[in-house]
Amino acid sequence: MKLAIDLLKNVLQGNRTALAQAITLLESTSTNRQFLQNRLEFIRALNNANYEQKKPTIRIGISGSPGVGKSTFIESFGMFLADQLDKRIAVLAVDPSSAIRGGSILADKTRMPRLTAHQNAFIRPSPSRLHLGGVTQSTGETILLCETAGYDVILIETVGVGQSEYEVHHLCDIFVLLVAPASGDELQGIKKGIVEMANIILVTKHDGDLIIPARRMRGEIRSATKFINYQERPSVLCVSAKTNHGIEDTWKEIDTKVNGNLQAKEQRRNEQKIGLLRISLINELFSLLNRTLDNENYEQRLRNDPKLSIYELVQEIIHQDLANALGKIKY
Amino acid sequence: MKLAIDLLKNVLQGNRTALAQAITLLESTSTNRQFLQNRLEFIRALNNANYEQKKPTIRIGISGSPGVGKSTFIESFGMFLADQLDKRIAVLAVDPSSAIRGGSILADKTRMPRLTAHQNAFIRPSPSRLHLGGVTQSTGETILLCETAGYDVILIETVGVGQSEYEVHHLCDIFVLLVAPASGDELQGIKKGIVEMANIILVTKHDGDLIIPARRMRGEIRSATKFINYQERPSVLCVSAKTNHGIEDTWKEIDTKVNGNLQAKEQRRNEQKIGLLRISLINELFSLLNRTLDNENYEQRLRNDPKLSIYELVQEIIHQDLANALGKIKY
Repeated sequence: MKLAIDLLKNVLQGNRTALAQAITLLESTSTNRQFLQNRLEFIRALNNANYEQKKPTIRIGISGSPGVGKSTFIESFGMFLADQLDKRIAVLAVDPSSAIRGGSILADKTRMPRLTAHQNAFIRPSPSRLHLGGVTQSTGETILLCETAGYDVILIETVGVGQSEYEVHHLCDIFVLLVAPASGDELQGIKKGIVEMANIILVTKHDGDLIIPARRMRGEIRSATKFINYQERPSVLCVSAKTNHGIEDTWKEIDTKVNGNLQAKEQRRNEQKIGLLRISLINELFSLLNRTLDNENYEQRLRNDPKLSIYELVQEIIHQDLANALGKIKY
Repeated sequence: MKLAIDLLKNVLQGNRTALAQAITLLESTSTNRQFLQNRLEFIRALNNANYEQKKPTIRIGISGSPGVGKSTFIESFGMFLADQLDKRIAVLAVDPSSAIRGGSILADKTRMPRLTAHQNAFIRPSPSRLHLGGVTQSTGETILLCETAGYDVILIETVGVGQSEYEVHHLCDIFVLLVAPASGDELQGIKKGIVEMANIILVTKHDGDLIIPARRMRGEIRSATKFINYQERPSVLCVSAKTNHGIEDTWKEIDTKVNGNLQAKEQRRNEQKIGLLRISLINELFSLLNRTLDNENYEQRLRNDPKLSIYELVQEIIHQDLANALGKIKY
């Protein structure tokens, strides 16, 4: 691996391979002391570079159940931005469950062939290895990296399972929920918390003989969201990845909501960092705890020694083993 | 405070004031190094004493929504054990939500006047201070303490909010759920996970003009629990704290289920410890994390320094501040 600072230079010069390598650096779960020190330097330099840049960007969270048409929507939407508006777009995936479910989320780039080939687009498949306790921390830095590398719009794709959406909500300027027109009970299959987070709800597949069902669905969602306590009620639009119906309107809606009040956007991003700090701390602690528990056979000791109290073992693990596992990075 | 080992001696000699003091020692959230060392010695000695004793005990978890009649049931049931069977009974409360909801759970002993006055009974009100992240760890040691002090039956009371029941489930030989006869939808108001944990379901208030509704309720619950995937389906009984109807049968049912297979009971208790280890570790880490976050003004730093990355701050908190907060106890 190159020294981290050189890697960052290459990323800032527009080298895509370097960008992909740098994201791998951010996602790595290595606990090697030298590696952690190196990454810390990289992230410090990245935050400085990003701060100097001051480029306006838009971070869009996109969620929806499997089968709703997320990939085709992202392809159409991304192509509109990259081709028509000449914007640079990066697509990232947050999918903590993929290792368990063998999820298809961005599993290969072949689901978005046109966007993948476009010079203005960068598509990052889901992390191949499951980070115990969520991927938010590295995702936050990955977003910053893409922005610093010159991408204007960052799309963060999640599957609608709940926890990851909650975390992604702290990373985005706006949260878009995709819903299929098939069933009137569609919204009920989505966790209530996710619907409440949505700023924009898109009914997909508004084409062919699904146009009428899609419009009916839009009406139903508009009615249903009356009973949810929003700060600002979500816009509900119909879109089609086939005909590009609603794609431009979706962008206008996002742009207006995010950039209509730049001061509010700045303030929201700062407040999000506070929320992310707690989430990241908890994720990091869980992952440290799991690594510690994997390394030592505590359960066997508990089985073998009936006089051993849980309290004693907890104190030993935390004040001795975990304390040793900390002390990795020096300030 | 007396030296912990002396305190334990007094507890083992049957001194109730010492028992109450010892529980306070277990529940304390002090982070004083000397105190933690002292408590660790106390718990080691307690576990040794308990191991030497080998006295058969029964640990009963009791849950039910507010208003279901938990206090009056515990009073009648406890009086039956203490008076008729000459058993020694300790009543403990686990109520992590009390600080928020101002809960009435064991808030004062006046709700169980006869049992409180009985020489065979020890009643411990709910911890007055909320332990962030649950009370399980100290509750586990408190149960052991009461058993070592000579109590045969330990009742652990919770309110039906979910998380605490899940934790208490790891502390008990048997889990009893109380349900009021008023409404046929009663079970639906209780979290499904709690109903699934129940080994015995008691319909309360089987007296006066509620006898018929109580019996109907019993039938409905028996039907409803057919559709839940139990290892062993729960017994459903009617009880009355006024007439003592069903109180003796409840005891027989508990005794049979718990002591019918002593090997299984022993094995279950050992397995529970494994589950408790993880829960306790997580609780302890959360509480350490919260104390660390309270002490330092990280959020202000994040607000003041836009170049500061969350990653850097997380690494600093975990590898520096939290690492310092650990190192408290020496082995």
